[in-house]
Amino acid sequence: MKLPIAAVGRSIPRLEAHAKVTGHAAYVHNLSVPGMLIAKVFRSTVAHGRIRSIDVTAARAMLGVFAVYTGEDIRKVIAEPYYGPAFHDQPILALDKVRYAGEPVAVVLAVDTHVAEAAAQLISAEYDELPAVFNEVEAMTSTAVVHEVLKPAGTFADLKHLKNKSGTNIALDFHLRRGDVDKAFATADHVFEHNFRTQQVLHLPLEPFATVAIPEGDRKSGTLTLHSSTQSPSFVRIEIARLLGWPENKVRVKVPYLGGGFGAKVYIKSEALAAACAMLARRPVKFATTMEEQFYMITKHATTLRIKSGVTRDGKITARECEVWWNGGAYADIGPRVTQKSGFTAAGPYEIDNVKIDSYALYTNLPAAGALRGFGIPQLVWAYESHTEMIARELKIDPLAIRRTNLLREGRPQATGTLMRDAALGQVLERLATRMQWDKPLDRGTETLRRGRGIAIGFKASISPTTSMAIVNINADGSCHLYSSTVDMGQGSDTAMAQMVSEVIGVPVQKITVVHPDTDVTPYDMATLGSRSTYHMGHAVKNAAEDARDKLFAMARELGLSAETTPIPDVFKKKYGMQAGNIVGVGSFIPPYTSPDANGQTTDATPFWMIGATGAEVEVDIETGEFKVTRLVNLVDVGKAINPAIVETQISGATIMQLGFTLTEQMNFDAGHVTNASLADYKIPGIRDIPPLMENEAVDANQKSGPFGAKGVGESGTFGVSPAIANAIDDAVGVRLTSLPLTAEAVYRGLRNKAGNPLRND
Amino acid sequence: MKLPIAAVGRSIPRLEAHAKVTGHAAYVHNLSVPGMLIAKVFRSTVAHGRIRSIDVTAARAMLGVFAVYTGEDIRKVIAEPYYGPAFHDQPILALDKVRYAGEPVAVVLAVDTHVAEAAAQLISAEYDELPAVFNEVEAMTSTAVVHEVLKPAGTFADLKHLKNKSGTNIALDFHLRRGDVDKAFATADHVFEHNFRTQQVLHLPLEPFATVAIPEGDRKSGTLTLHSSTQSPSFVRIEIARLLGWPENKVRVKVPYLGGGFGAKVYIKSEALAAACAMLARRPVKFATTMEEQFYMITKHATTLRIKSGVTRDGKITARECEVWWNGGAYADIGPRVTQKSGFTAAGPYEIDNVKIDSYALYTNLPAAGALRGFGIPQLVWAYESHTEMIARELKIDPLAIRRTNLLREGRPQATGTLMRDAALGQVLERLATRMQWDKPLDRGTETLRRGRGIAIGFKASISPTTSMAIVNINADGSCHLYSSTVDMGQGSDTAMAQMVSEVIGVPVQKITVVHPDTDVTPYDMATLGSRSTYHMGHAVKNAAEDARDKLFAMARELGLSAETTPIPDVFKKKYGMQAGNIVGVGSFIPPYTSPDANGQTTDATPFWMIGATGAEVEVDIETGEFKVTRLVNLVDVGKAINPAIVETQISGATIMQLGFTLTEQMNFDAGHVTNASLADYKIPGIRDIPPLMENEAVDANQKSGPFGAKGVGESGTFGVSPAIANAIDDAVGVRLTSLPLTAEAVYRGLRNKAGNPLRND
Repeated sequence: MKLPIAAVGRSIPRLEAHAKVTGHAAYVHNLSVPGMLIAKVFRSTVAHGRIRSIDVTAARAMLGVFAVYTGEDIRKVIAEPYYGPAFHDQPILALDKVRYAGEPVAVVLAVDTHVAEAAAQLISAEYDELPAVFNEVEAMTSTAVVHEVLKPAGTFADLKHLKNKSGTNIALDFHLRRGDVDKAFATADHVFEHNFRTQQVLHLPLEPFATVAIPEGDRKSGTLTLHSSTQSPSFVRIEIARLLGWPENKVRVKVPYLGGGFGAKVYIKSEALAAACAMLARRPVKFATTMEEQFYMITKHATTLRIKSGVTRDGKITARECEVWWNGGAYADIGPRVTQKSGFTAAGPYEIDNVKIDSYALYTNLPAAGALRGFGIPQLVWAYESHTEMIARELKIDPLAIRRTNLLREGRPQATGTLMRDAALGQVLERLATRMQWDKPLDRGTETLRRGRGIAIGFKASISPTTSMAIVNINADGSCHLYSSTVDMGQGSDTAMAQMVSEVIGVPVQKITVVHPDTDVTPYDMATLGSRSTYHMGHAVKNAAEDARDKLFAMARELGLSAETTPIPDVFKKKYGMQAGNIVGVGSFIPPYTSPDANGQTTDATPFWMIGATGAEVEVDIETGEFKVTRLVNLVDVGKAINPAIVETQISGATIMQLGFTLTEQMNFDAGHVTNASLADYKIPGIRDIPPLMENEAVDANQKSGPFGAKGVGESGTFGVSPAIANAIDDAVGVRLTSLPLTAEAVYRGLRNKAGNPLRND
Repeated sequence: MKLPIAAVGRSIPRLEAHAKVTGHAAYVHNLSVPGMLIAKVFRSTVAHGRIRSIDVTAARAMLGVFAVYTGEDIRKVIAEPYYGPAFHDQPILALDKVRYAGEPVAVVLAVDTHVAEAAAQLISAEYDELPAVFNEVEAMTSTAVVHEVLKPAGTFADLKHLKNKSGTNIALDFHLRRGDVDKAFATADHVFEHNFRTQQVLHLPLEPFATVAIPEGDRKSGTLTLHSSTQSPSFVRIEIARLLGWPENKVRVKVPYLGGGFGAKVYIKSEALAAACAMLARRPVKFATTMEEQFYMITKHATTLRIKSGVTRDGKITARECEVWWNGGAYADIGPRVTQKSGFTAAGPYEIDNVKIDSYALYTNLPAAGALRGFGIPQLVWAYESHTEMIARELKIDPLAIRRTNLLREGRPQATGTLMRDAALGQVLERLATRMQWDKPLDRGTETLRRGRGIAIGFKASISPTTSMAIVNINADGSCHLYSSTVDMGQGSDTAMAQMVSEVIGVPVQKITVVHPDTDVTPYDMATLGSRSTYHMGHAVKNAAEDARDKLFAMARELGLSAETTPIPDVFKKKYGMQAGNIVGVGSFIPPYTSPDANGQTTDATPFWMIGATGAEVEVDIETGEFKVTRLVNLVDVGKAINPAIVETQISGATIMQLGFTLTEQMNFDAGHVTNASLADYKIPGIRDIPPLMENEAVDANQKSGPFGAKGVGESGTFGVSPAIANAIDDAVGVRLTSLPLTAEAVYRGLRNKAGNPLRND
């Protein structure tokens, strides 16, 4: 039956391309069911305060309003209405107090969006304001405490090892110790220390959050179906079942296409409120946010980073100390895991004998921060690749050379002690050097338009240990169904997974249907996040396909048929006497993993390493500080690409997204209020913001432990962008920027400072 | 993990009861999707004719009409637009000619039902009428030929052995020969021969036919999803894929709850037209029939039956010859299989050494006939149990005694030669005798209100060989999902299947979700028909649950846990480190089967036998012929009941349904036109038509080859009703009726004949 298909490694067009370009693709926002009510939220106007009263009278009286609920109403259907993946800290609607400006305080259910919005505007609330804290470093010691009591969820075994401190804003502190940094600093030729900062930014998928919750039966024995724009249907099922006190089979989570996710839609977001409203109203409820409301849902962590290195005179790093403060906002979401899982790579992809890392997840009175493409890594790379460059410049060592000297080589121990395996750091760096023609001098531009170049390289561990499962079902005519809970949110996973099935079973991709996530159907998958799916789900899919193929071959042989040459339909017809039957293969995957000890040491931190490097060329107007990124070269290690064309778009997408975070995107706050909560005021990259030269390349590598040699790629393009550009600006005009975003104003201030003529407010 | 649950054998309330009584249950009729068009059909006004012209101009011009299609339009998307399970004989819309009055000739797609109906009334057509044939016996020799060429579908391997004759109306003829009837008749003490007839009736599920067809993508590479009220989602997928020339994975068939089926909704009905319209319009299309339109969709076969027996003077039947003419209407549907699969039991549940059966599937110019609860058996039992009683009365042998004498006993050969196994014929007959207090004389009533009693016993083979598959998926919290394509159309299969899973895995039924049929998800099942599901799907479900349980136990042991005592969630947590993972078990079942030879002989005709017997008591007004069924006692062999309460409702339902066919239901025709196509004119049993005494009992039996000892029960209650009542009338007033329905008028005519004073038109 095995045809010479070789589906893996080919740039097959995306399975859903036609449906999307013709507008047939289904999204939750477009879903309407009979009797459905629309939910609109009334939000807090203070950043921190005790709720004195909420007046919903006028809203309730409005024609077309079905109900108005506050936090206390939620308790009628959910006794403990707090949710979250790491902590059960987030109330579905505020209870007792509000913790950020924009927090949902009440919800209107009405016959349509217009009525719901109008009614929500009739709600008012009074608060006794409390002192608030906004900065992550201040949160370490502030007497303004966001959560009086911390309630760890117990979901992740790893997080139990880490301390969280009730009565403080520290949700979690992670510490890694390797060697003796103090001793090493004392004996180092040079010690450098720098501070960096990154701003709060947003995921902004073009499809905002949306859930349609449909209750059936009664509160006690009924069921609840959620159609949701989630990246983690399995988790939503578990969490909603927990909130309702139901077994998992009573909650069904279905995910159609997603209009982007980027980490915004992981774990639980719009689902909790939609579910609670549906249970209260006993009617289907749609809770769909506007673009603007995304500014109050989930953000990327702003960070403060301190990094200190001991270095020999020839540039060998002997010790590195990192402190990272993650601004988690008012609710932990998955922040503690960012703190831990990204924390352990804070010293960079370098072999350093003495490492000390302290990483803190902090509560503040801002919108909650969670996972965003890179899961904290772009912040860390920003710091360590700026810092590394600053050392090189100080020591007058070529930026490429200092990286070559220190880079972690195959088989060498990373800061956790885990040995590097199948991590093409060297290859990525060398391909970057080649493509940038680093050995040739750069054209330095004109007197006023100065040119410079910079490079940066970063790495990331995969989140571990996590489980994926898949089922492959071969139909009697030889077509197949793949049941997988991986969410195709635009990254092309459906196509890649179908290619893997095609490769194993030997049927063309067109005969393979990928069944979209539906927790009543598709088996467990931890979530679609952290670039884990190609590797983890890929393994599960490969295992399931191989299981199905083995069963098919066995059936053929039992019937006295040649397993290799009999067409699939003939095997079924001989077995069942007509076009009938299925062959069902099951696959699961969980990588080996060893929990880190108290010093963050483990032999098995991750099943694979993601590697991304960027080279940037810039042109800076020395008179105005304005600069242009004229070239971006992005190199990644994806192992073997399952679908090279899709890999290419993943690199592009990640790079352009990080370009926005590097140059233009920034949430502005005034006393905790977002002051630019609209796409008119918050500038994401448009087509004209893409550098005229942008080159993406997946190096020729092989993740030997991966399915078909593949590993994840969704985030690798983000790693090096920010420091490469900052390093290029420094190279061009000698101005070092240490805060994101990089703006013409900051460059201009730097130029004035450098000239000994600072602006008056500097 | 195994709890002492003992779910099997308990009368657990139906899983869907709450959803149904509160109106939450979803039906296709209530489904609405954005952009959906409504289809309404324009039907033929002649019973047989060549289409001269169809005028759709006015309909097309109507505001709100999207399109009007005729048969020729269908060819644009389906080159050969003929469908059917046994023959590819039925055009989606009439092509060239019409074959019955009521046949769909054109279809309107419009924005709503009202516009569609109004537009359909603006269509007109002209025909060149052809001679028509309506009676099944006349069809044998009529020169009015309904189909010039016969096109067997090739779906069922068995049907290939049987002849069908192009140029005649004989779709299929089945012949069984055992011993030598002619020789036996020559030597018999007595030979009796009688003729019987049954009328054309309807299934009339309270939910008429409905399909919503949703196209996605383009015609070549797209997909089509059908939400349909079908009993056979797997078959619909195969048939629609065949029509469109697509692989099966491109067609998805989803079935929500069904409001009854009774065989009306097997194979392919409203799906073909809905699919074709959706493909032409590139828009979602709903084709839902009215109650009235059911009269033109599918009926039960009217039959003429001739039965002749050779008998010894003490009542031993030595030879039996049966001829059955099945009125199949204009399209074969599954009629040929009725002819064959029921044909071989036409001689009754008696051990008879010499048997000759000729069974003919005939085309006529009436609405098509197909499967209806009993699949032809009630017609056969009507004949052979009336005939047996007439012999007994003639020979003055007690009706119970003659049956005792001839009944097929365990291990003895049925007419096909297949030995009877686990067929509690004797037990059923004896329990019936006991409950009827047959040994005590009946109170014979008054001079004018005469009382009588009658019994009848029938049996049925299961359709064979057919395949069922199931998947059982255990979630990390111990709850389970069962994926099964069995359609719960009210018979309670979801509950019964969940009980089997519960029994095997040891979790309560409430923690088990039965995933409704969805061909992208639930694996192949031949269909929900012929009372096959409890046995076939039951086996598949049991096998799947056992497979899952074995894997769970193996996983526990691998982890060093006690398989028997560790709670399921603890096994998963230890394996996956968090609430994660699934265990997936797969089960399939196909019974052993041997195709009959040219004489209808086989050692393996059926995996199990269904047995049903009815005792009736009647009171007849000798002055008017009016009669009342005062008591009905229904005995069945279900092996071991999975859910006794549901079995009880199955017996009731079947009995009441057959009571309608016995007493009041009859489609009336005038030149092929149905003259009573409405529930006002066609009387189905209401609550007041149920006999004051109705007793149902499943005898204590055991189908050793069945899952948990169970077998099917959906039809057994229908078998004996009609002849038991006719026999009771005969017992009361000495009037023998040989045609269904049994009416007061027929009794009155009989009384007048008996008195030598016939009505003038008799």
